[in-house]
Amino acid sequence: MKRLEDKILSEGIALNEQVLKVDSFLNHQVDPKLMQDIGQEFARRFRDNGATKVLTIESSGIAPAIFAALELDVPLIFAKKQKSITLTDELIVEPVYSFTKQMTSHVAVSRKFLNSEDRILIIDDFLANGEAALGLGKIVEKTGASVVGIGIVIEKSFQPGRDKLIEAGYQVESLARIKALAKDNISFVEKGE
Amino acid sequence: MKRLEDKILSEGIALNEQVLKVDSFLNHQVDPKLMQDIGQEFARRFRDNGATKVLTIESSGIAPAIFAALELDVPLIFAKKQKSITLTDELIVEPVYSFTKQMTSHVAVSRKFLNSEDRILIIDDFLANGEAALGLGKIVEKTGASVVGIGIVIEKSFQPGRDKLIEAGYQVESLARIKALAKDNISFVEKGE
Repeated sequence: MKRLEDKILSEGIALNEQVLKVDSFLNHQVDPKLMQDIGQEFARRFRDNGATKVLTIESSGIAPAIFAALELDVPLIFAKKQKSITLTDELIVEPVYSFTKQMTSHVAVSRKFLNSEDRILIIDDFLANGEAALGLGKIVEKTGASVVGIGIVIEKSFQPGRDKLIEAGYQVESLARIKALAKDNISFVEKGE
Repeated sequence: MKRLEDKILSEGIALNEQVLKVDSFLNHQVDPKLMQDIGQEFARRFRDNGATKVLTIESSGIAPAIFAALELDVPLIFAKKQKSITLTDELIVEPVYSFTKQMTSHVAVSRKFLNSEDRILIIDDFLANGEAALGLGKIVEKTGASVVGIGIVIEKSFQPGRDKLIEAGYQVESLARIKALAKDNISFVEKGE
């Protein structure tokens, strides 16, 4: 998605070869028009998948996901990150390991908002090692519902997340695919690459 | 706002006389069309205040706030809740006490996204004791920027938050104002009341 790539080039900061900071338009300050474009692009790519709900994780997933949900005319659910596990019958909880933060958090969704008939489109801001998306996929599948696609705003294609998701059988659509990061140099995967 | 009040009446659950659960359309599952209407209503009410940015707190503030920011054509900033205070020159941090959770969290905004010229519209999902909105106001004022209004989705008018914010000099616009909560009975403040 050209407009997103341009924004990453003009405002993204490669802190090192692993970490891209995009807190001026996605993770802290948020560009609402760009989020709307992103939501519309997700809707275009997944329109025929018959999603009944969009699922994301707080907090940075919410802005792009709400526009995708609006366009697809379905509700959004945002999974909650919990420090402590308060296991109740009402919550479905999955541990998700973050390589960046080197810690495990627990991601929870209320059982009452997912049922076995649901067809879930997962949206997240970043794809690196795939742990968050796989965790959300597990939550969905525990309810008997199905995942009809995974939409990612920024994929770090040099990390193994995409391959893991495809291996798990998911359709993955990433709006920007980063091939390599280096100080003052961000390159994208070209079409067909 | 009639549509919001209707939604609260049909889906809100008064857990007791203090706590209203609206996790089917605002705090966990989110109704995107309602959020769009809410954003448009905030924009209508604050259109003449000259906001340069919208500020909210993760996570439930993000969905209504992004639509307000889209309508007003300004960026959104979402403040982050932190368990531990990592004080750096780059962050402005305020402690915010939650009566509901009986704990203090630290709310942080990057200094680089607020400057003294900014005119900030604060948006939040709930107003009860006013601690979160006052904390955001303090963050804004520490940078020399000004608060041009506070927009609230659901105000619990029987709690002291609104009075505190008005006493502090803020324009407060709440789209639903709850007069009293009781099991199976939610009543709203009438116009002129």
